[in-house]
Amino acid sequence: MASFRVDLKKVVDDSYDIEIGYNLEDKLIDDIKAGLVGNIKKFAVVTDSIVKDLYAEGILKRLLDNGYRADLIVFEEGEKSKTRKTKEYVEDTMLSLGYRRDCCIIAVGGGVVTDLAGFVAGTFGRGVPFINYATTLLAAADASVGGKTAVDTPLATNLIGLFNQPEKVYLDIATWKTLPSEQIASGLAETIKHACLADASFFDFLEANVDKIFANDEEACKHIAEVNCHVKYEVVMKDELESGLREVLNLGHTVGRAIETVSDYELLHGQSVAIGLVAQAVMGQKLGYCSTEDVSRLESLLIAAKLPTRIPSYIDREALVKKLYTDKKVKDGKLRFVFQRGIGNVMVFDGEQYACPITEEFARETIMEI
Amino acid sequence: MASFRVDLKKVVDDSYDIEIGYNLEDKLIDDIKAGLVGNIKKFAVVTDSIVKDLYAEGILKRLLDNGYRADLIVFEEGEKSKTRKTKEYVEDTMLSLGYRRDCCIIAVGGGVVTDLAGFVAGTFGRGVPFINYATTLLAAADASVGGKTAVDTPLATNLIGLFNQPEKVYLDIATWKTLPSEQIASGLAETIKHACLADASFFDFLEANVDKIFANDEEACKHIAEVNCHVKYEVVMKDELESGLREVLNLGHTVGRAIETVSDYELLHGQSVAIGLVAQAVMGQKLGYCSTEDVSRLESLLIAAKLPTRIPSYIDREALVKKLYTDKKVKDGKLRFVFQRGIGNVMVFDGEQYACPITEEFARETIMEI
Repeated sequence: MASFRVDLKKVVDDSYDIEIGYNLEDKLIDDIKAGLVGNIKKFAVVTDSIVKDLYAEGILKRLLDNGYRADLIVFEEGEKSKTRKTKEYVEDTMLSLGYRRDCCIIAVGGGVVTDLAGFVAGTFGRGVPFINYATTLLAAADASVGGKTAVDTPLATNLIGLFNQPEKVYLDIATWKTLPSEQIASGLAETIKHACLADASFFDFLEANVDKIFANDEEACKHIAEVNCHVKYEVVMKDELESGLREVLNLGHTVGRAIETVSDYELLHGQSVAIGLVAQAVMGQKLGYCSTEDVSRLESLLIAAKLPTRIPSYIDREALVKKLYTDKKVKDGKLRFVFQRGIGNVMVFDGEQYACPITEEFARETIMEI
Repeated sequence: MASFRVDLKKVVDDSYDIEIGYNLEDKLIDDIKAGLVGNIKKFAVVTDSIVKDLYAEGILKRLLDNGYRADLIVFEEGEKSKTRKTKEYVEDTMLSLGYRRDCCIIAVGGGVVTDLAGFVAGTFGRGVPFINYATTLLAAADASVGGKTAVDTPLATNLIGLFNQPEKVYLDIATWKTLPSEQIASGLAETIKHACLADASFFDFLEANVDKIFANDEEACKHIAEVNCHVKYEVVMKDELESGLREVLNLGHTVGRAIETVSDYELLHGQSVAIGLVAQAVMGQKLGYCSTEDVSRLESLLIAAKLPTRIPSYIDREALVKKLYTDKKVKDGKLRFVFQRGIGNVMVFDGEQYACPITEEFARETIMEI
């Protein structure tokens, strides 16, 4: 027997900037001209059927006007498109258009587009650079920091994917004006989650300013974009590969993702998370992790943000309990939940565990009552 | 406009060991018990329909006997299985068996199995560890060092995938006894490629000992396993992400991969590479990069290794020329070839370019004559 050592220790720098502002299309082109992705000249602009007309074509035109090779790759909008099949479609379109390794993907859209396009970028030619141009509040709150890319499968959401960092992220707040109010609400759910788990004064700010977000008030919108980045960054920095601390970002997501799937995506991601936040708060209140006042403040803020706080009656609650087991926090066949501690903090168990085992009965009890 | 910096600089250690020897199944289990993959207790053993009975079931049984949860996931043998569809099948099987992020994949088989399973591991739950138990000479020569994982698509081979390093690689030389001789030959093609590009004395060794490999002579087999690892390691270490030097491993592959595809995988990978090696040597001889004697030594060694040196008559040579453009070395629409310099070295162009632009006419001329 002989042994051979392959030494592959190295320093990796995946750092990137997030630009927050209004109408950032020209800034994007300026950055590319200034060498953001080296001397790459080919850009696949990946978007969905709604964002195409609104923003992606404008970016495509600017690329072409500046002498770059660029193509638009469009798929049907919505969470149902976040599949391996859509990933194949984008790959095959790029290949048939002659794209190889010397290209860059620009994702223009919300979380579905950035999650999918970032995953495509990670495996196309074993990895090409990508840029996120985020056009929703949800993408600003959820998809801009963390490098999580993924698709859904019939058996689980977000379980096939990669950690893959973009070259740069643009949060164009002007795009929020074109969002239907339920999409603003959906993004506010992740925003409220961030406040619940990390920042009590941000929770106060949201209680006082939630209406301004719906009115696209510049200062309020910029503030929540920045705080969202900041909270996610603090958590992601400390645990890039989600071994521990990062699980706190899963607050409300155990029940939330399950509802999203069981509703067959009738409920938006943020709407599902809103109900999931209530679920963990109600469970947490029974366990003494937060007060009844905390729960009612949470519910009031969610309602002010035009979000649901109860499981819709058309949801099969037993199917929902079963679905909880597809959560990626499940360990040794046991459900595990993250809980907020009061408002602005999370529970820590056994020194450094952020998710705590919960019996199916206890989860069912809460699911039946909300 | 505001800007937010996400700092993600870190040290990554992807180092691993390659164990070379006979009957390494027990060593694998001992390593797992000793903590090779931490305290993971669930193992998806991924294999193909031929290797299943020969080796994978033995490894499965050992895992179960030692108290681990383990399942066998089997797909049809052959290059045609290296698809996104097979990847989906493996993923869906794992998900339906309840596998989540706390598992490890063990790939048992040749290059197709290790390429595919390594890719699945890289994206399952955004990355789980994997171990390669290589049962062919080709996998020993080609797939054990470098971290390249991929699947083929209708439009190109190996263009969708990841750089993903295993936890450990086992090269079980005892398994080579069960290989049909054309599979040994296929592995020898990559071995001869390594000799051509990096090691003249290894080329001499192969000329003198090629028969011993077919007879599974212990010393000769171990020697070629080790030198193969060594050559690939030297190249991979210096260029893990294939930006420059690593392109030399593509020697013979521009024409080779195209033949493999145009033959609809009638020709094995190594058989195709053998013809590709002849193609670059014949072109290189015309360009003054190697001598007619070098070309004839190469052809003689390939013949001794039971490999083809001419394009089969059933291949559509015009289709082959067209297919060259799907090669991942193509830049700005131009074909690029790697060339050996004499025997045991490669050509370097413009200081540090290892692949050189070639006109379609020149490539066609050679393809028509061999």
